[in-house]
Amino acid sequence: MYGLIGRILAVEGRREELVSILLESTGSLPGCHSYIVARCAEHSDGIRVTEIWDGPESHKGSLQIEAVRDAIARARPLIAGFDHRFETEPVGGIGLMAQ
Amino acid sequence: MYGLIGRILAVEGRREELVSILLESTGSLPGCHSYIVARCAEHSDGIRVTEIWDGPESHKGSLQIEAVRDAIARARPLIAGFDHRFETEPVGGIGLMAQ
Repeated sequence: MYGLIGRILAVEGRREELVSILLESTGSLPGCHSYIVARCAEHSDGIRVTEIWDGPESHKGSLQIEAVRDAIARARPLIAGFDHRFETEPVGGIGLMAQ
Repeated sequence: MYGLIGRILAVEGRREELVSILLESTGSLPGCHSYIVARCAEHSDGIRVTEIWDGPESHKGSLQIEAVRDAIARARPLIAGFDHRFETEPVGGIGLMAQ
């Protein structure tokens, strides 16, 4: 499995709009075992997204899905930056959806 | 909901043992919606644990469960340190288990 943990900084005051867009396209993502959108406690414009995929290919593939491309296009103007990005190799636990 | 993202550094060469102990007690954790143990890509002794709970009380309560206390006691000598700790307020997504 392939994991990504990252922080997205929204344009000031636009966090809730961005959270909504990020959650829109989580209906059906092939190869996705977990995709969770959370508000940062330490930054009023920060969002943490944690993702677990079969592998990097599934993650890359998701970026080609039409609904995801559409969401990205609408999200882009609301994004001020990305940081705190970590890659992981998830081993197990609670909340890994079967695929 | 209440989220925690953190990195645990294992004592050199002991990461796999520590991963196994961390995964042992994930059978039944009241108030837990997600608990995932992952190897860090960037550090050969690093483990990232991402947790989502009903609230901080559920997380604190889990530390009193006998199986968890036993696991913590066995894990402690294998832990070199903790860092990169972030709190979040998860909003939604894929992989949030019902409680």
